[in-house]
Amino acid sequence: MTDIAIIGTGQIGTSIALRLQETGAGRKYRVIGVDRMRDHAVAARRTGAFVDVIADPARAVRDAGLVVLATPTGAIIRLLHDLAGDIPEGATVTDVGSTKARIQRAAQEALPAGVAFVGGHPMAGTTGTGPAAADPALFSGARWVVTPAGGTPEPAVDLVLGLVALMGARAMLMDAEEHDAYVAAISHLPLISSTALFHLARSSEAWPELSTLAAGGFRSATRLAGTDEHMAHDIASTNRDQLVHWLDRYRAELGRVRALLADADADEDLFRYLAEASIQHGAFEAGAIGRTEVDERIETPDLSLFDFVMGGALAQRARELAQEPEPTDRRGRRDR
Amino acid sequence: MTDIAIIGTGQIGTSIALRLQETGAGRKYRVIGVDRMRDHAVAARRTGAFVDVIADPARAVRDAGLVVLATPTGAIIRLLHDLAGDIPEGATVTDVGSTKARIQRAAQEALPAGVAFVGGHPMAGTTGTGPAAADPALFSGARWVVTPAGGTPEPAVDLVLGLVALMGARAMLMDAEEHDAYVAAISHLPLISSTALFHLARSSEAWPELSTLAAGGFRSATRLAGTDEHMAHDIASTNRDQLVHWLDRYRAELGRVRALLADADADEDLFRYLAEASIQHGAFEAGAIGRTEVDERIETPDLSLFDFVMGGALAQRARELAQEPEPTDRRGRRDR
Repeated sequence: MTDIAIIGTGQIGTSIALRLQETGAGRKYRVIGVDRMRDHAVAARRTGAFVDVIADPARAVRDAGLVVLATPTGAIIRLLHDLAGDIPEGATVTDVGSTKARIQRAAQEALPAGVAFVGGHPMAGTTGTGPAAADPALFSGARWVVTPAGGTPEPAVDLVLGLVALMGARAMLMDAEEHDAYVAAISHLPLISSTALFHLARSSEAWPELSTLAAGGFRSATRLAGTDEHMAHDIASTNRDQLVHWLDRYRAELGRVRALLADADADEDLFRYLAEASIQHGAFEAGAIGRTEVDERIETPDLSLFDFVMGGALAQRARELAQEPEPTDRRGRRDR
Repeated sequence: MTDIAIIGTGQIGTSIALRLQETGAGRKYRVIGVDRMRDHAVAARRTGAFVDVIADPARAVRDAGLVVLATPTGAIIRLLHDLAGDIPEGATVTDVGSTKARIQRAAQEALPAGVAFVGGHPMAGTTGTGPAAADPALFSGARWVVTPAGGTPEPAVDLVLGLVALMGARAMLMDAEEHDAYVAAISHLPLISSTALFHLARSSEAWPELSTLAAGGFRSATRLAGTDEHMAHDIASTNRDQLVHWLDRYRAELGRVRALLADADADEDLFRYLAEASIQHGAFEAGAIGRTEVDERIETPDLSLFDFVMGGALAQRARELAQEPEPTDRRGRRDR
């Protein structure tokens, strides 16, 4: 129960492992990587972040107290079903998928009562992919959404919050559905709108001239079009409804701007629209974000706390599990 | 006739002046700045790029062989009319406005036969404004569109191309209307789409949560929303028709992506769409732009060439002008 199994050694999985080594957690717990892609496994092994990188997830989770699923969303859902019988009782499973509701439903369906699931989503990462793009500082100062379902044992939530703190990230607790609606607006819509903007210019007959004239503005507005297509498809296809909702709102917003542009009498309103955006964007860039009372239970990296929940409380929870049977309705909501 | 008058000492105007000093041109020609905003004038004077920064454009152009209009588009059009009687015969006027057709029409209406106009548009600049955001290397390697009208005297075109080369930029010759259509797609649409994307998220009730979750993707996709509102309005209001055209095409493109997202059976097409963008974006980022035969008449900074046209050929042209009357139809197209 003292292993940390990281399934998927891409940019996120390997960055987590590198940071575990950097904080010293890697000396107390065996950090095992899993990757079925041979070149990923070889590259991940070379980083020195893992005691080993193997191809068989079932073998990797056998003695794990913590399992981190760091594959694309589709694979996370498959792994939850495939590994359900292999993950030891008392272990905690978390993930880093960019949508949360479908994964949470899969975890509730698949995992036995003795295995806790706490979803997570680090709001970090670049358009780079693979172990070569990993960086132990990738999560430093970033938000990391944690989405415990009602009824999840407190020690499991604490363990994941401890991991987030250890990564140097800032935890934000919310419901899985809430998360999916938010990221559709702030992460998935920008991905799709940037991709469409690039597609439009690229497919124009004037592309030779357009690309020659492209300056920094076009480059930053279309940067996300370079997102790995598997990652982009994973995001788009697992959060379709929310994304379509925000895409419709965006098209309506563009319709409003079009009306301001097409009507010369609306010139003052056009100026006001542009000025409002510029001023509010300035405030946003200067750090005016969020509310003051955002949920943050743990703020500083703390190995001893992670240790405590990983080594101590989980062992205690394993003992408790052996004594008290889990209530049958695991999906019942708990007041938080 | 040996002065260079730069009207408007914002980021672009002051960057031009700084680069003129860097190349040594500032020691051969008096570079005079004009700014009616007192704080701009003070800051521009402090950069050391100008022999003086004054408030009166008529006085600044009196002995100018080259006049650079570096104000917003609306002011460029006013200045062409206001200064028409003050600019000496034989001088060349250029500008750096982000739309070209309206400015070219104004120049043809306003300027007398002895003053040549050659429009220009450096595809450079940041969201920063004012003399403090100036940089002599701002144009280094950037494209600089030059839009000579038919019938423009060759020495005037050469002088502007010489200036572009001196700035370290790469000249691209095209028609004013052609330019406006291209920049609507590659520069103005990204500005408006980014601004609308930011507006949408910012005006959402969930903005406190959204802004807290915002990562690098949202930031790059909405960076242009921070564009100075006067500059943004200037761009949007002087290129309305072209911009509305591209905005409609963009909304149609987003409609296509929406259809791919809403129809689970179109999943393969959705993946193909995302993959195409990612691959083509990778090629674009790797430098696959333009055609091979892009117009580039001068490629390396060359003070002697600039000198030659500024000091020599223009003097000759002044002599010619004194002898040969200009054809009355200045708008007639010349074969290029």
